[in-house]
Amino acid sequence: MAEYVFGVDVGGTTVKMGLFDMDGNVLDKWEIPTRTENRGEKILSDIAASIQEKMEQKSIAQETVAGVGIGVPGPVEKNGIVHKAVNLGWEEMNMKEELTALLGGMRVEGGNDANVAALGEMWKGGGQGHKNLVAVTLGTGVGGGIIINGEIMTGATGAGGEIGHIHVEDNETEACGCGNFGCLEEYASATGITRLANRALQAGDKDSVLRKGEVSAKSVFDAVKAGDELAIEVAKQFGDYLGKGLGVIAGIINPEIFVIGGGVSKAGEVLFDYIRPSFEKTAFHGSKNVIFALATLGNDAGIYGAARLLL
Amino acid sequence: MAEYVFGVDVGGTTVKMGLFDMDGNVLDKWEIPTRTENRGEKILSDIAASIQEKMEQKSIAQETVAGVGIGVPGPVEKNGIVHKAVNLGWEEMNMKEELTALLGGMRVEGGNDANVAALGEMWKGGGQGHKNLVAVTLGTGVGGGIIINGEIMTGATGAGGEIGHIHVEDNETEACGCGNFGCLEEYASATGITRLANRALQAGDKDSVLRKGEVSAKSVFDAVKAGDELAIEVAKQFGDYLGKGLGVIAGIINPEIFVIGGGVSKAGEVLFDYIRPSFEKTAFHGSKNVIFALATLGNDAGIYGAARLLL
Repeated sequence: MAEYVFGVDVGGTTVKMGLFDMDGNVLDKWEIPTRTENRGEKILSDIAASIQEKMEQKSIAQETVAGVGIGVPGPVEKNGIVHKAVNLGWEEMNMKEELTALLGGMRVEGGNDANVAALGEMWKGGGQGHKNLVAVTLGTGVGGGIIINGEIMTGATGAGGEIGHIHVEDNETEACGCGNFGCLEEYASATGITRLANRALQAGDKDSVLRKGEVSAKSVFDAVKAGDELAIEVAKQFGDYLGKGLGVIAGIINPEIFVIGGGVSKAGEVLFDYIRPSFEKTAFHGSKNVIFALATLGNDAGIYGAARLLL
Repeated sequence: MAEYVFGVDVGGTTVKMGLFDMDGNVLDKWEIPTRTENRGEKILSDIAASIQEKMEQKSIAQETVAGVGIGVPGPVEKNGIVHKAVNLGWEEMNMKEELTALLGGMRVEGGNDANVAALGEMWKGGGQGHKNLVAVTLGTGVGGGIIINGEIMTGATGAGGEIGHIHVEDNETEACGCGNFGCLEEYASATGITRLANRALQAGDKDSVLRKGEVSAKSVFDAVKAGDELAIEVAKQFGDYLGKGLGVIAGIINPEIFVIGGGVSKAGEVLFDYIRPSFEKTAFHGSKNVIFALATLGNDAGIYGAARLLL
């Protein structure tokens, strides 16, 4: 009789791990370092060892564990094949099979980290009660995870939900990290907001509190809340691009809810004031009735979602 | 033992109907008029009567029929609830329950016509062998149907895949039929291509065969094939918008294949020469490896897809 499930979220620096009961209550939470040397060959065995150690420590018998869910930063197909996880040093490999073998046949399910985090937010976070959800992570980049009828939309090659690289500006002259020009990520990520702010500061000599300290997504939205005009201009640009991008996504996916997370989302619901106008202007009427919500699980979304893969 | 299945495609003028064996071979095909008067109250009973007549005529016993699939022009939820089908005069109703009742308890499955046609193209048309597919219909408008792992992506309110209304142009001054400005449909539909051509003709006095006859999507692509420079300019604009739109869709959905149908697709594979450059320029690298194919079922895609809903 299954009583426990493990959720694992593999990042480039640390692996976050959680032990859950079958209702999704977290019983324990810990981290181990991600050893990326030698093309990350130790990562899975380190994870297996840590799970087995935890089971011994808590006297958990193998037959009471439903399995292990694991999210990794890279495209993962439905069958568990990872194509390339640059930050881990991995080339193509069957993560599901390898980890199962290391754990004596225990059931393993895997997914892309952003998709798995989206599942976590659906289960226990800002998207609870919804089965058609788009999670949008505004961090250093812009990530996405799409849930259709309660299941991750993996895509044909594991690249489903890569919403940071949808084209939103025809006249961009600086390349995105992906090599294209005018990707959503260039305007709606923390880095993108900083870039928009620096452009605005350089374009004139308008007074702004942003001239007095470090320019970041946080300082921009702090300044917005203080009524700084230049910062408000920058927030409008950010919101125009993101609202337009979410409008396109809504037209295609027709989700119930957008769950906005990542570092930028710490600014809070003020974000929605800037996203909504261009969303309303560009989204198809049949798909407009979407909830905008903030993610609530923070860095734990990955371990929750990973555990949910088993249930 | 089920031997037969019916596929029904309800249009604003005629209802197309097909009788299939369980392998999807069409055994018979016919049409009845769509009676839209009195808010379309006779449509479902006309369909039920026609199915029963066909069964009598061919001595088909009810227990040998797996059921009836039906596609309608409007948003349809997974449970069979149609929200509004303007061209049929329907307000909210449970199409599945009502048709089942009219057919003495026979199983009924329903879907949006564009989504159902996409399923037909996956099953027996240009998308055979693929389970992650986006069908794009370039007709009077631009329609879409998205298939994920072999199943229609309905969306939260049945508006999934409404790709004709994704925003692709910030500087449009003419409104789309939906009320927004800069929808894909304004440039990539037959109507949109005609509009682009008329704009180009009015913008200067460049010589073109298009000045000598009716301007239509067909005459534009005929002129393209004859090397007409102005027509080629128009085709480039069309392709820039559609390629950009499909690039965004690929980034979000990560499909294996785009299946292009509708009247405009009669121009043939020359379309791809104009779509591919902007697709390549704007699509995310992880989602770029997509096949472009032409739809092959024409107006029969709907009855095939409807039948497939049962199997």
